[in-house]
Amino acid sequence: MDVLEAIRAKRAIRQFADKSLPDDAIRAILNAGRRAQSSKNTQPWQFVAVTEKDVLARLSQTGDFASHLAGAALGVVLAAPDEPERHDWLMFDLGQAASYMQLAAWELGIGSVIATIYHPDQARAILSVPDDYRCDVALSFGYPANASLMSDSPRPGGRKSLDEMVHTNHW
Amino acid sequence: MDVLEAIRAKRAIRQFADKSLPDDAIRAILNAGRRAQSSKNTQPWQFVAVTEKDVLARLSQTGDFASHLAGAALGVVLAAPDEPERHDWLMFDLGQAASYMQLAAWELGIGSVIATIYHPDQARAILSVPDDYRCDVALSFGYPANASLMSDSPRPGGRKSLDEMVHTNHW
Repeated sequence: MDVLEAIRAKRAIRQFADKSLPDDAIRAILNAGRRAQSSKNTQPWQFVAVTEKDVLARLSQTGDFASHLAGAALGVVLAAPDEPERHDWLMFDLGQAASYMQLAAWELGIGSVIATIYHPDQARAILSVPDDYRCDVALSFGYPANASLMSDSPRPGGRKSLDEMVHTNHW
Repeated sequence: MDVLEAIRAKRAIRQFADKSLPDDAIRAILNAGRRAQSSKNTQPWQFVAVTEKDVLARLSQTGDFASHLAGAALGVVLAAPDEPERHDWLMFDLGQAASYMQLAAWELGIGSVIATIYHPDQARAILSVPDDYRCDVALSFGYPANASLMSDSPRPGGRKSLDEMVHTNHW
């Protein structure tokens, strides 16, 4: 699958088949995140890759819209240093790593969705993340419960038009 | 080019050939950013796409490491609402949009690199961006001055190993 097609077709998948992911697929997803660029190539992230069902179930209760983690074959919690003065750019970098992982997964036929962790202290405790790291973001991965979602056309109206967001040479 | 290959091979390109980009390539890059996901699908971004050389030259002076913008065929400034309480997630979303644009460009044989805008008020003035938008991030795009960089193997040691960043089920 080429990049433009993956970008065109990818959609959020929140309901997953009860099927584990092959180890090489998990590795490919994590590797995609590893290869993402970051500010000054600092690679500030740590990834906690969770496949144990009870851990996923507990993580699913750390966000108001994180219930999908309970059904995921793989959850990946993105941790970054707790450094308020550069928190914004750390989040920018995590956004890049998340994108790389999700696009790589899509190519492998694996769906995904992002969760905001509303209770990061709970997530830190569940995963034994050190105090000097934040974990505000998690991703759920898995084969979709509804396989046709991987090949359906994008939902009309899911995105604004280019005219609504693009300015040429000046605003 | 498939997604995993683009992710594997992509590197920052900072020096560009003196060659403009076709309109359909510019559109494909912007469209990739348009299709990126965002928190609650808010699509909070506005993109200022700059091809005028004098505007690029002025933008190149808004960041300590932004000189590459002066030589770019296309600069894209990513603007987002100036809302401090969600600035971190806006940056996360901009990170996703930037990734999509850069991976799409790479597939089209177009290199890119990210600049931090250290003087966003200057950039806002140059581009007539409204006061209620921030612009902290710009991307340079163009055909690489050194075409072999698009096909060379990734630089060894450019990224930490998976073992240095992945934890399984708990930290």
